[in-house]
Amino acid sequence: MKQFAIIGLGSFAQTALEELASYDFEILIVDRDENLIDRYKDFAVESFVADVYNEEIFQKIIPGKIDTAIVDLGDDRETSILATHYLKKMGVRDIVVKAESLAHGEILKVVGATYVIFPEREAAQRLVPLLVSKLLFNYMPISSDLVLAEMSVPDKYEGKTLIQANLRKERGLNVVAIRKGGLQNYDFFEPNYVLGGEDVLLIVGKPADVQYFSRVEEVPSGKKKTDFFKKLFGSWGNR
Amino acid sequence: MKQFAIIGLGSFAQTALEELASYDFEILIVDRDENLIDRYKDFAVESFVADVYNEEIFQKIIPGKIDTAIVDLGDDRETSILATHYLKKMGVRDIVVKAESLAHGEILKVVGATYVIFPEREAAQRLVPLLVSKLLFNYMPISSDLVLAEMSVPDKYEGKTLIQANLRKERGLNVVAIRKGGLQNYDFFEPNYVLGGEDVLLIVGKPADVQYFSRVEEVPSGKKKTDFFKKLFGSWGNR
Repeated sequence: MKQFAIIGLGSFAQTALEELASYDFEILIVDRDENLIDRYKDFAVESFVADVYNEEIFQKIIPGKIDTAIVDLGDDRETSILATHYLKKMGVRDIVVKAESLAHGEILKVVGATYVIFPEREAAQRLVPLLVSKLLFNYMPISSDLVLAEMSVPDKYEGKTLIQANLRKERGLNVVAIRKGGLQNYDFFEPNYVLGGEDVLLIVGKPADVQYFSRVEEVPSGKKKTDFFKKLFGSWGNR
Repeated sequence: MKQFAIIGLGSFAQTALEELASYDFEILIVDRDENLIDRYKDFAVESFVADVYNEEIFQKIIPGKIDTAIVDLGDDRETSILATHYLKKMGVRDIVVKAESLAHGEILKVVGATYVIFPEREAAQRLVPLLVSKLLFNYMPISSDLVLAEMSVPDKYEGKTLIQANLRKERGLNVVAIRKGGLQNYDFFEPNYVLGGEDVLLIVGKPADVQYFSRVEEVPSGKKKTDFFKKLFGSWGNR
């Protein structure tokens, strides 16, 4: 059975704990806030009210053989860096740490974090395209060169079949699935499906192609955007 | 030209500002922290050091005709709720607010937020499946019934063509693109492509199918998970 330690119960760690609790894992939680530990102690097999700012406290609490640690100490950057360092010394394989800034994230990588998470940056990245284009409902960068997006059907494609729309050749976009006529659930589809005005398309393509197709009023220069993608996704998926 | 007000410069708002700055928008920023305003003032056409806790201050600073406001006041939930309320009264169309908890998010919706963002919750949601399955590299919920995932090719499919693997019929999974042999970029592919051990698949399918295929050791009960998806995605894409 996998063993997890959750060090600090910020919003990120709280949700991770709730998600992990639906699996059959052994989870240990630590936070300096007694109320938080009280609220979450039933999700864990062990719980401690403690401030993990030095190695001695750390070694008393965290067993040596855990597989995975999640560190979410909020604003307390120094302690999150120290905790990551101690976990690395213990040989913990997966060390997930929430970073407060890019600089904080860099240091966390240096001291041994295997995943550095930038929740606010990622959320902002996904949000801005939606504010810029009213056709877009969802925008999820997958890698530096690919995004997934949910979007309404542009007027000029209403009544056309997917073959006629020819989005792959003409726009560089791949339609993955369609939510038909305001329905909640996606359907996979036949190429002769006729696009309706209320349909929502789930598309995959290059960021520039998706943004162009969703009629972004002002297309960004591109350079800046690419750097952001690299910064963001450099920290994910590199095992 | 679109006008944005960014109220509070937390990490979320900082990234949104950096992203928006690559478009040709008019952006106003407010934060109580002079150092933050100093660091970001070149991204904006107007900037204020102020604490927006009452309507009078608010009305002095924020022009009546902005299109979009982004509110990221960190831990200060009361002020974020008040700011949202004032923006709604002013008739701002898109009001994006970062929430600290589900309860905070509920209140923000009641007082008029059009997007409520839960960055930490979303990040945790995307992370946990990666910790549970070593084949998964990325896991992005799209809607309550669909996820996009990046995953390594399971051993038993190495050397098979995509037609032979028959993932759509047998596993309920749609392969969208492939990153071949450890390359950085995704390629779209022909059905007779032979899967290699180093390939990474970009797949779309139901959460249960993706998790089963990626050999999650312990499959969660499902009920809890579904509620989380609903909570999370109820706040996105409802315009």
